[in-house]
Amino acid sequence: MTPLLDELRAIVGASHVLADGDLTAWEQDWRKRMRGRALAVVRPASTGEVARVVKACAAAGTPIVPQGGNTGMVVGSTPDASGTQVVLSLTRMNAVRAIDGDNLTMTVEAGCVLQSVQEAARGKGFLFPLSLAAEGSCTIGGNLATNAGGTQVVRYGNARELCLGLEVVTAQGEVWNGLTGLRKDNTGYDLRDLFIGSEGTLGVITAATLKLYPLPSATLTAWAAVPSVEDAVRLLGLAHRELGAGLTGFEMMGQFALGLVAKHFPQMRVPFHEQSAYCVLLENADLESELHARAQFERLLERALEEGCVTDAVVAENLAQAQQLWHIRESIPLAQAEEGLNIKHDISVPVSRIPAFCRATDALLQQAIPGVRLVNFGHLGDGNLHYNVQAPAGGDAAAFLRDWEEKVHDLVFDSVRRFGGSISAEHGIGSVKVDTLARHKDPTALALMRTIKRALDPKNVMNPGRVIKP
Amino acid sequence: MTPLLDELRAIVGASHVLADGDLTAWEQDWRKRMRGRALAVVRPASTGEVARVVKACAAAGTPIVPQGGNTGMVVGSTPDASGTQVVLSLTRMNAVRAIDGDNLTMTVEAGCVLQSVQEAARGKGFLFPLSLAAEGSCTIGGNLATNAGGTQVVRYGNARELCLGLEVVTAQGEVWNGLTGLRKDNTGYDLRDLFIGSEGTLGVITAATLKLYPLPSATLTAWAAVPSVEDAVRLLGLAHRELGAGLTGFEMMGQFALGLVAKHFPQMRVPFHEQSAYCVLLENADLESELHARAQFERLLERALEEGCVTDAVVAENLAQAQQLWHIRESIPLAQAEEGLNIKHDISVPVSRIPAFCRATDALLQQAIPGVRLVNFGHLGDGNLHYNVQAPAGGDAAAFLRDWEEKVHDLVFDSVRRFGGSISAEHGIGSVKVDTLARHKDPTALALMRTIKRALDPKNVMNPGRVIKP
Repeated sequence: MTPLLDELRAIVGASHVLADGDLTAWEQDWRKRMRGRALAVVRPASTGEVARVVKACAAAGTPIVPQGGNTGMVVGSTPDASGTQVVLSLTRMNAVRAIDGDNLTMTVEAGCVLQSVQEAARGKGFLFPLSLAAEGSCTIGGNLATNAGGTQVVRYGNARELCLGLEVVTAQGEVWNGLTGLRKDNTGYDLRDLFIGSEGTLGVITAATLKLYPLPSATLTAWAAVPSVEDAVRLLGLAHRELGAGLTGFEMMGQFALGLVAKHFPQMRVPFHEQSAYCVLLENADLESELHARAQFERLLERALEEGCVTDAVVAENLAQAQQLWHIRESIPLAQAEEGLNIKHDISVPVSRIPAFCRATDALLQQAIPGVRLVNFGHLGDGNLHYNVQAPAGGDAAAFLRDWEEKVHDLVFDSVRRFGGSISAEHGIGSVKVDTLARHKDPTALALMRTIKRALDPKNVMNPGRVIKP
Repeated sequence: MTPLLDELRAIVGASHVLADGDLTAWEQDWRKRMRGRALAVVRPASTGEVARVVKACAAAGTPIVPQGGNTGMVVGSTPDASGTQVVLSLTRMNAVRAIDGDNLTMTVEAGCVLQSVQEAARGKGFLFPLSLAAEGSCTIGGNLATNAGGTQVVRYGNARELCLGLEVVTAQGEVWNGLTGLRKDNTGYDLRDLFIGSEGTLGVITAATLKLYPLPSATLTAWAAVPSVEDAVRLLGLAHRELGAGLTGFEMMGQFALGLVAKHFPQMRVPFHEQSAYCVLLENADLESELHARAQFERLLERALEEGCVTDAVVAENLAQAQQLWHIRESIPLAQAEEGLNIKHDISVPVSRIPAFCRATDALLQQAIPGVRLVNFGHLGDGNLHYNVQAPAGGDAAAFLRDWEEKVHDLVFDSVRRFGGSISAEHGIGSVKVDTLARHKDPTALALMRTIKRALDPKNVMNPGRVIKP
């Protein structure tokens, strides 16, 4: 029992410093890629407690790993194997502090589960639009620390664009109260956006003021067969013009990806996948009425059929049908897993260059690995593809990963760079991509990042080894 | 003739280093509040030249004052009186580098005049929505360096929200190529937003990748009489629900402000100002059709009349009428000037608290200065008021300013702070508000800003004395 643990117990209460027993939930990452060992898991209940915990750890030179719902994809919120790091869990700080309807904002603590934030907003007649697969478990603090994306980015932006103000505990344990609900505030450097997306390496987000939107009257979903990636991009352009801000979702899915869903979940009826190289799922949210939304959707799809970028299309008749269509899209990762291990990417490329990127990268992969299968799907509306690579049919998936994972990453990331893209669109860097980032990012940007990390966290106590090495 | 000037001439060409003659255009700020003296005005033609100029100045320990259209309101882009600072004018870097319709982006150099950016976008069928009074003179580099606001923020956000990527020359003269057109890119700290709004104190923005939107089919303007600020806020809430993203402008104007327009520009017909304490100008932009926009507007105004937050309203029948209504709003600053000197503010407060803020601050001012007249108008849609204070009728305006300017600023800023607002909503800090900021901003935020300034510009060569003193 170290003096630090005693000090932490005095701050948060003995029952909220976990040092014995099964700490798997905090020590193992979501995808079960790594298992670390924590000195302790500390669970403060207030911003003041967070500040005192950070001060105590900093004084002891003990690294701090902030953690929300621990649902990240890049091993960014679990401790390393050393047993010397303190996991700072924010889940007890889960109050909705205020909802301000006239200002279209709400203020919540970092440990609020995303779904609770959505529900609290809806309860007052508003929409908080951030939406992603882990929403039942992830916390808003983690969403902001990693600048989470999800399915509504084409309309509402990432977590960054949905946040107006932050409360942060710095690496020195000072509290910055930046919980403003202002749309305009030009009083100095943008500290908010510096902490958003910094993955806990510069400080701890303890609360946030978020943007709200009016609840739509109707949300409709359509499913369209498109002959090629080029056609999907053309459909996207038409959808921007016809639906404007009504376009809230635009997902593209390749034939092989949809075939896996049909194969492993035969109870799901996957429209058009047998005859079409790609399908697109579109969502149209409308403040006016369902009638208006349906008329807009029909006009869009008629025009797309006329222009030939869509060969067939269906608009869901009711909520159940819409949910079935979304469920197909969301089942792709599970269907992939059923098919066997695969090599995953979370990349983005300017929308205009996605057709050429896919053509070039598909060809390079086929050349390197004859028979390789591409599970290509993603949020085309914002240029984000989960461009995953599956072993040739009948091959040994484990051997494929062992032999090819690094080489395939290099091939895909080099291609991403040639097309002006990003090696991590929405998942972040964590510990998994630190070295990859160092190879692919602009060197001046890396130098600036390093300077900022050193300046704001000179003792390197905040989530060390993640994002950038100082 | 110093060796530095010779070096600068070698970099940009002798004709682009101005050291003699009348340099008023570069040395005097837009509002003619201060006149500085430059060592030289240097006008590079490329990013490479900017980098070499910054390196040369940094090596000589010579401060650099980046300048675009020099239309700022807070004396942020002109040299001090010492004659030792180099003005780095970006106006020769005015190329539109690319317009990418499928990606809804354009890439432009910092010296592009805002209106040219708007026109280049429109020429390809797209909208670049940033719009403000100085758009015929200001440059996009300056707009980004100061995070400019304007009239469309309620829908499209500030300059910050309209920018996806930057090219920046750092204080060390290194080039960061961050000209991405990506909507999703989670590869490390958000350097883009750190430079946006930093007013040239951390580096020089040389180019930017901007967001484009589809051009609306119709843009309609309405003018409504509202009995009180509370009613204006209620109308705003209704407008958000009825128009959604169609609501592109929401300006509130007080009776005294409109009375000044009617008095000094009698040829303008100002609707409803005699019978109503406040008027609101609303703009509705619609992708669908003018018919649809008009029906939406009429439904909104009918509902507002029913609920009593609007007592009378008119929708402009055509573009000329719409322009007349906007012209009234834009004439308020000129009418104020005709009436005499006044004390200006550019503040923001959460929309929900604006009624109470106005009530409390109006009362405090009347108490301090009986008969004081308030020119209260602004972008209510985003909480931004130009809450200006004019001498009592018949008083000596110059004496009023001399005696009251500091005291009125203190009174208003203290009130802003009590209501959770900002002392500079869209104009920035420059040199004019540096000391005020130090008094009103959260101390932890100030400390973080100082740390960042020292880390990124340790020699304090980038626009020293602006925003924050290191």
